[in-house]
Amino acid sequence: MPDDDITLADLCARVHAFVDERDWAQFHNPKNLSMSIAIEAAELMAEFQWLTLPQSRDALADEAHRQRIRHELADVIIYCLGLANAMDVDLSQVVIEKLALNAHKYPAEVYRGRF
Amino acid sequence: MPDDDITLADLCARVHAFVDERDWAQFHNPKNLSMSIAIEAAELMAEFQWLTLPQSRDALADEAHRQRIRHELADVIIYCLGLANAMDVDLSQVVIEKLALNAHKYPAEVYRGRF
Amino acid sequence: MPDDDITLADLCARVHAFVDERDWAQFHNPKNLSMSIAIEAAELMAEFQWLTLPQSRDALADEAHRQRIRHELADVIIYCLGLANAMDVDLSQVVIEKLALNAHKYPAEVYRGRF
Amino acid sequence: MPDDDITLADLCARVHAFVDERDWAQFHNPKNLSMSIAIEAAELMAEFQWLTLPQSRDALADEAHRQRIRHELADVIIYCLGLANAMDVDLSQVVIEKLALNAHKYPAEVYRGRF
Repeated sequence: MPDDDITLADLCARVHAFVDERDWAQFHNPKNLSMSIAIEAAELMAEFQWLTLPQSRDALADEAHRQRIRHELADVIIYCLGLANAMDVDLSQVVIEKLALNAHKYPAEVYRGRF
Repeated sequence: MPDDDITLADLCARVHAFVDERDWAQFHNPKNLSMSIAIEAAELMAEFQWLTLPQSRDALADEAHRQRIRHELADVIIYCLGLANAMDVDLSQVVIEKLALNAHKYPAEVYRGRF
Repeated sequence: MPDDDITLADLCARVHAFVDERDWAQFHNPKNLSMSIAIEAAELMAEFQWLTLPQSRDALADEAHRQRIRHELADVIIYCLGLANAMDVDLSQVVIEKLALNAHKYPAEVYRGRF
Repeated sequence: MPDDDITLADLCARVHAFVDERDWAQFHNPKNLSMSIAIEAAELMAEFQWLTLPQSRDALADEAHRQRIRHELADVIIYCLGLANAMDVDLSQVVIEKLALNAHKYPAEVYRGRF
């Protein structure tokens, strides 16, 4: 599986090349990219708009639906990688850092089974 | 830099452990996770809500603001990793696949410098 | 009940006065207002983030929760009225117009009980 | 102008009839409606995705673009009216109530010309 080998830095480099080939860096300021992430996130949500929660799990078993969901998720990630590039942020580092902050905010022994 | 060493499988495993320790898998159906991605994306947008596009670039030079932006971006990614786990999706594979589809949809020679 | 007496023109005028008193028209371009609508919509969604669909109905019976939901919904509407002001759009007219388009797109006899 | 005569209660009744004719109340729980508002809000944002703030004002002068923006705004409002129906909320009342709370939170003399 590619996830076993590929780092976020690898993916960031691919997104950078994609943007560079189109000379789109001029549009990729943080504000526009944050809007783009939110727009793609809404397209992902639309795949589940009228489903119950169990139906949203079952949707994954439908190959065509699963494919649309995968691609919408990818679009969210691609813009996140674009923002990481525009900010010169090390995404792996900040994910690990934020997970530690979240772990502190939501201690497992307090939040087990509840939100 | 962590991005150079840490694979997506590593990060997915860290998010999986975080969720597992809190017994939160019961809440992490695709519909709820898609909402969560959209909610975090909106919190990220809020960091740029009233700024002009150049001001949104300048915001990155302010250390406290940059930190908030990094952490909001991380929260979006963390829920994306959570959805990848819930769907058993290989994120690297789908990002690479979707970039190829986007490259076909937006040929560089047609879209250079325009959107 | 106010809804029976207060026209949309009244509400738009109140939002206009609020913005005017703060000299905020300078920030209220359509792009910023569309972001603001989306940000408030996400805060509204967050009220239901981890609930099942039936639980989201039951939430309305909890007075404190109902109040938060009412206020988040109001914030979405207030920015919509702000955008209507910034665009000089007659909201009643466009809502009636769009309902007619939606009725044409989703004929009742085809879409009864399904989405 | 219709806004001078039409109340939110009038519009809520029209949305109620639309939903009722399609037997869609079963899908219109608060969680689904909040997602729908956010999805439509993102479609509205997409109209301004890559524009600068001044360009987003200029977009209103383009008749075809203005029409798309009007209709996307209408879709956001229509789902807000649907949620008001599902919650049995008096929208005019809550808008007036929330404007008063916002006025208290953002005193005009403190926030004039700043956000």
